[in-house]
Amino acid sequence: MKKLVLAYSGGLDTSYCIRYFTRELGLEVHAVLANNGAFSAEEVTVLRERAITLGATKFIEMDITRHYYQACVRYLIFGNIKRGDVYPLSVSSERMFQALAVAQYAQKIKTDAVAHGSTGAGNDQVRFDLVFKTYLPGVEIVTPIRDGQLTRDQEIEYLKKSGVEWNAEKSIYSVNQGIWGTSIGGKETLTSHMPLPEAAYPHQLKNEDSAEVILAFKEGEPVSMNGKKFSHPVDLIHALNEMGYHYCIGRDIHVGDTIIGIKGRVAFEAPAAIMITAAHALLEKHVLTKHQIFWKKQLADWYGMMLHEGNYLEPTMRWIEKLLLDSQKNVTGEVIMTLHPYRFTLDGIQSDHDLMKSGGGVYGEKNTAWSAEDAKGFIHMLSIPFASYYSIHPEELPS
Amino acid sequence: MKKLVLAYSGGLDTSYCIRYFTRELGLEVHAVLANNGAFSAEEVTVLRERAITLGATKFIEMDITRHYYQACVRYLIFGNIKRGDVYPLSVSSERMFQALAVAQYAQKIKTDAVAHGSTGAGNDQVRFDLVFKTYLPGVEIVTPIRDGQLTRDQEIEYLKKSGVEWNAEKSIYSVNQGIWGTSIGGKETLTSHMPLPEAAYPHQLKNEDSAEVILAFKEGEPVSMNGKKFSHPVDLIHALNEMGYHYCIGRDIHVGDTIIGIKGRVAFEAPAAIMITAAHALLEKHVLTKHQIFWKKQLADWYGMMLHEGNYLEPTMRWIEKLLLDSQKNVTGEVIMTLHPYRFTLDGIQSDHDLMKSGGGVYGEKNTAWSAEDAKGFIHMLSIPFASYYSIHPEELPS
Amino acid sequence: MKKLVLAYSGGLDTSYCIRYFTRELGLEVHAVLANNGAFSAEEVTVLRERAITLGATKFIEMDITRHYYQACVRYLIFGNIKRGDVYPLSVSSERMFQALAVAQYAQKIKTDAVAHGSTGAGNDQVRFDLVFKTYLPGVEIVTPIRDGQLTRDQEIEYLKKSGVEWNAEKSIYSVNQGIWGTSIGGKETLTSHMPLPEAAYPHQLKNEDSAEVILAFKEGEPVSMNGKKFSHPVDLIHALNEMGYHYCIGRDIHVGDTIIGIKGRVAFEAPAAIMITAAHALLEKHVLTKHQIFWKKQLADWYGMMLHEGNYLEPTMRWIEKLLLDSQKNVTGEVIMTLHPYRFTLDGIQSDHDLMKSGGGVYGEKNTAWSAEDAKGFIHMLSIPFASYYSIHPEELPS
Amino acid sequence: MKKLVLAYSGGLDTSYCIRYFTRELGLEVHAVLANNGAFSAEEVTVLRERAITLGATKFIEMDITRHYYQACVRYLIFGNIKRGDVYPLSVSSERMFQALAVAQYAQKIKTDAVAHGSTGAGNDQVRFDLVFKTYLPGVEIVTPIRDGQLTRDQEIEYLKKSGVEWNAEKSIYSVNQGIWGTSIGGKETLTSHMPLPEAAYPHQLKNEDSAEVILAFKEGEPVSMNGKKFSHPVDLIHALNEMGYHYCIGRDIHVGDTIIGIKGRVAFEAPAAIMITAAHALLEKHVLTKHQIFWKKQLADWYGMMLHEGNYLEPTMRWIEKLLLDSQKNVTGEVIMTLHPYRFTLDGIQSDHDLMKSGGGVYGEKNTAWSAEDAKGFIHMLSIPFASYYSIHPEELPS
Repeated sequence: MKKLVLAYSGGLDTSYCIRYFTRELGLEVHAVLANNGAFSAEEVTVLRERAITLGATKFIEMDITRHYYQACVRYLIFGNIKRGDVYPLSVSSERMFQALAVAQYAQKIKTDAVAHGSTGAGNDQVRFDLVFKTYLPGVEIVTPIRDGQLTRDQEIEYLKKSGVEWNAEKSIYSVNQGIWGTSIGGKETLTSHMPLPEAAYPHQLKNEDSAEVILAFKEGEPVSMNGKKFSHPVDLIHALNEMGYHYCIGRDIHVGDTIIGIKGRVAFEAPAAIMITAAHALLEKHVLTKHQIFWKKQLADWYGMMLHEGNYLEPTMRWIEKLLLDSQKNVTGEVIMTLHPYRFTLDGIQSDHDLMKSGGGVYGEKNTAWSAEDAKGFIHMLSIPFASYYSIHPEELPS
Repeated sequence: MKKLVLAYSGGLDTSYCIRYFTRELGLEVHAVLANNGAFSAEEVTVLRERAITLGATKFIEMDITRHYYQACVRYLIFGNIKRGDVYPLSVSSERMFQALAVAQYAQKIKTDAVAHGSTGAGNDQVRFDLVFKTYLPGVEIVTPIRDGQLTRDQEIEYLKKSGVEWNAEKSIYSVNQGIWGTSIGGKETLTSHMPLPEAAYPHQLKNEDSAEVILAFKEGEPVSMNGKKFSHPVDLIHALNEMGYHYCIGRDIHVGDTIIGIKGRVAFEAPAAIMITAAHALLEKHVLTKHQIFWKKQLADWYGMMLHEGNYLEPTMRWIEKLLLDSQKNVTGEVIMTLHPYRFTLDGIQSDHDLMKSGGGVYGEKNTAWSAEDAKGFIHMLSIPFASYYSIHPEELPS
Repeated sequence: MKKLVLAYSGGLDTSYCIRYFTRELGLEVHAVLANNGAFSAEEVTVLRERAITLGATKFIEMDITRHYYQACVRYLIFGNIKRGDVYPLSVSSERMFQALAVAQYAQKIKTDAVAHGSTGAGNDQVRFDLVFKTYLPGVEIVTPIRDGQLTRDQEIEYLKKSGVEWNAEKSIYSVNQGIWGTSIGGKETLTSHMPLPEAAYPHQLKNEDSAEVILAFKEGEPVSMNGKKFSHPVDLIHALNEMGYHYCIGRDIHVGDTIIGIKGRVAFEAPAAIMITAAHALLEKHVLTKHQIFWKKQLADWYGMMLHEGNYLEPTMRWIEKLLLDSQKNVTGEVIMTLHPYRFTLDGIQSDHDLMKSGGGVYGEKNTAWSAEDAKGFIHMLSIPFASYYSIHPEELPS
Repeated sequence: MKKLVLAYSGGLDTSYCIRYFTRELGLEVHAVLANNGAFSAEEVTVLRERAITLGATKFIEMDITRHYYQACVRYLIFGNIKRGDVYPLSVSSERMFQALAVAQYAQKIKTDAVAHGSTGAGNDQVRFDLVFKTYLPGVEIVTPIRDGQLTRDQEIEYLKKSGVEWNAEKSIYSVNQGIWGTSIGGKETLTSHMPLPEAAYPHQLKNEDSAEVILAFKEGEPVSMNGKKFSHPVDLIHALNEMGYHYCIGRDIHVGDTIIGIKGRVAFEAPAAIMITAAHALLEKHVLTKHQIFWKKQLADWYGMMLHEGNYLEPTMRWIEKLLLDSQKNVTGEVIMTLHPYRFTLDGIQSDHDLMKSGGGVYGEKNTAWSAEDAKGFIHMLSIPFASYYSIHPEELPS
């Protein structure tokens, strides 16, 4: 019997896949759940039972959360990465690491085939396929939902006929949760003009009173919150998410170009991602030079685009990761924030590396770092190219 | 008697200048107030009387608001320009156009000298000097505050001795107001860790209930608000500022590198600027292609940096302005926002140019624009470079 | 009978296509030769007769040379565009305009199908397909060589069986000629280590003695050569090519990434393109500012990449063309070159817009544009960020 | 007696400085010659005697060649760096390392003052001042040539009066030699239209016959030439320079913007630099991916600009050096060149890391890495954005 490794999420599409692969194709199905922190132990148990019931030979849970943080999330923090200045790559980055985990399991067991439940209409198929093709050359990629353009109703119907009842109550929204944010798509996000209704967000307002949060970074990574140290940044992210959920912080809608060339719109709530990247970016404004900030941004924006579009395996990405890591040497300090319902403010920072506190000058104040003559000489030299240019082209001087 | 043209703001520094120039240097002082919309007719009358009382031969008010909008603000909108992703160049851009107005008056009257009241510690001296040197070659630039490193107390003392009483009550904050935002500097902004207290902002919360605002853009320029058309975008900006002031929208603190090479921190409130650029950016995400958005951003960010740093006269700026103008041909549509205390949300857009509505595919949904085979062929070709690279460098595959 | 428009070049592949389409598919074939200046009237007559003999209903010659210059070559000049700093986009840019011409003819006659003779292995299929799909939505694209993976031998065999003798003497090299250069691929270019032998280049050394050439540009376009004015830049390009061929100037090998994701290597001779872009770039170094040169290069390099990769229709390309056109306002002057066997030197320029001749300073010489104090103040201010940074991080000072 | 450290080159300017400092200012002068490989042991002896005769207390030779290679030249190679696509930063990069060496000596002996012989008209003053100010805060920088705007005649006159005869025969050209190239300025380079006469170049044609050179790189560094290994890349550079001098290879004229804002023109001969960077760039085209090449170029071009403009101490430069170093891991192989009088050709490369040799596809040839259907699906997906855009904006389709 041929072996097939399935990227299993427990949803309708991959549940259908297990049933179909075992029943119709007679395959030995290994259902791999790459857990990015979204599933509790109880939920995993349910998913395991479901997989086995559907016919899977094996159910494998791979906890990828810390690896995902180490290999990805910290670079998103270092680079203050948000697509379109808005979206922290919540789902798009996680999907890559789920694909990688599945591919590595598939390598280990020398599978004959590998499968995912993506349709042909979105970005996820690109992420899965690119990883599978690169890590598993020669291994067949099986994608029945994409190939058959199956609808939910067709899948439920098939399951029913094969003896499996699926709760047909269709959710209006497709929700994907992870430590770096939860995406919510459907109904309103398929239009251009409608915002997501309050109730569509997984978390609702619980805190009305404001709260101060002091986030400490060490070499770019978040290490403590209001003085409480966390054994791992992932734990801090969880704690900050919990806090942020109750304030409804980090909600927004991302509009952007998909890998497949059309525009897409998706809502998300990602309190920890939004607060951490904002706080980190402010700290960097104090401790990095103008040119450091410029180049980090150039590289990080491109890194974010490539990661979003499934190009995690482009070798240039490794160069940028190293540079981002190097860049964080002095990004140590505390960022003071205040959380309010639906928003937060960045109040200031404290850092031994703060360039605002370094010697001589205070902006706009009397200072000892330079004289009026220095400033005048400086400006005079800056004017030389203009004098040169406009002496030849006086007609081009703006009126 | 020699003629001197002074960039006059009515504040202590330039008031001192008039007195000093007329009394000590015996100059014929033309005090030019370049009004960017910050001064009402009553205020101008007060400033005129003050200038004449201090000894100015002439007081000239130049209303530069519409020119400033036409030559500058609309490009800031087209480019969604914010320094450090935060600051809409409120003061820094206006200062350039005040300098230009003064320079042009000085050209007209064939002045012998030109003066500004800037210190040697900040950015404004660069903006004034660069414009004056370029437009007025050979004309002396006189800057007594900078040259003498004068303190406020010294200036007040001098005025007093010369028979002029100056209200010695020193404001803690230096406030600069214009249509594109008001900057507030002093006390807390000289630290890294303290936010500005609520009372330091010129406007306080008046509206607690939320309000929907529909902003219509025509070829990139804001033209109407909730259906009300404005005869000029400047009037819309004023109206939106008034509305935003009452919600305390558009407040933030900018931390960045100054022209003179040190870090600076400044608070601001700029409701219209913040809401218009955010709304405009969202509209562009719907009507421009991925590459159009990328290049606009590259050019606009650089344009903003150069403008901020006083390099408005660099000829490349004219190229970018033309490109930004061209880029707005299809940026027509409505943006729906909701205003809340201290924040606003972008709810969606309506536009005939919306690329999300153009034929065939809806992201993530069944579609007719391509087949599963198309998607698979596409992804396969995307995988070719990876297959090629890792066939030679298998050890570089991320684990 | 259904109508098919074929992008016809007269070579084996498209000759096969005519025969196959008429004989096997019973189509009415319109063979369109988009002449980019490579074919003489005599050659066109031969190709016409061949097409008709093979069964084409119509043969259409479209002279696209001047349009190609106006819509493409001049932007390549304005942008000094060379892929990999080497290749002037000789063939890749022409192919786009051949595709456009064919598409426009196809639109006019309301064709049922459109065809090209490209294989599935190269870049040309992308250029043809993208243009055909965009201009002719709903029109079928027929590509028998690609679909059948046909070899030359198979095509010759088919022609023979259908009664047409094809000169079976296979050329070792595939040669594509146009005004902006001739590409030569085959044998050695399929390796990484072998240069093209002398005899493989279409033109051989005829001139041993050196010659001065003065090339005059007007707003970026080449208008005269050694004082001789040309009625159209295309004529100047032809003349300069003739001259350059005899010196074997403009030969090189391009190694780069193809659209389809693998590395490719191709030789070319493009004397006019190489000399004109080099001369133009030198002139710009004298008449444009540092920032103008920087941004032109950024945009032009990307433009060249996109054009090379078949993305001529990306709307951003139109923005860049406008900017490039604007950028040439002052690019007027003469460039002095000397031609030698296999090489040329750029000796200098003359221009009224030369910024080296503008006022005040001569580099490295005594000057009146600034004083020692100005220079010292300037440098002092430049040192401020370093003083600030290293006062905090003395350990980071390079040893 | 106060101590002064002088960046001593042995030329008229710094010879004047020694005499002036000792005679007029009574300083203890330490004359530091930072030897970048340009001075032989005999020449150093002459310069040492001259310094002592003029009054220097100490003459110090610091051999900086290998450090200069390690800390600078190899990054210029890794980055294929040429200003304006022409100039390999011969002199501008060396000057920085001479300044650094002098500063470090000055730190060691706790000097009271430091001096250089630059004028106020050029770039070198910026390089010296920035290094001295950063490494030696509080130490006075003394620059008599700049401050007094001294002419050569004035200096010779002073030396004469003080009892020192200086060979008054003024060279027409200012020549600066180092391992990475020799710059030649004067007379013709002060014009825009005249090339340097043959005789003005330090080396003349000696070899008429062509020669093959195979240059081997290991992780980006040149390690052997025609099979001969060198114990240090500096030795290979010397050998390649000697060979290239006899062919007059690597001559050109650089036109560019100086740090002080005006255009400058300078001739150079730099055979090793030009051949090594060209060979290295070709090798990289074979072993690096498209994106790797793109980003390396972006960063390296900026690195070159900053280095040229004296900003070696900007901390971002260290990030880029690390990335450039990382980028060379696979840049190992041989590059085959042929040297001819005044020119050389790049004939090909051999490398185990050559991506042209990696599996499946050969450009333009039949291949097994993908099918016609893959290619068609790929192109179809590439056409989606165009279809989308032009379905809304058909009037924007280029005609």
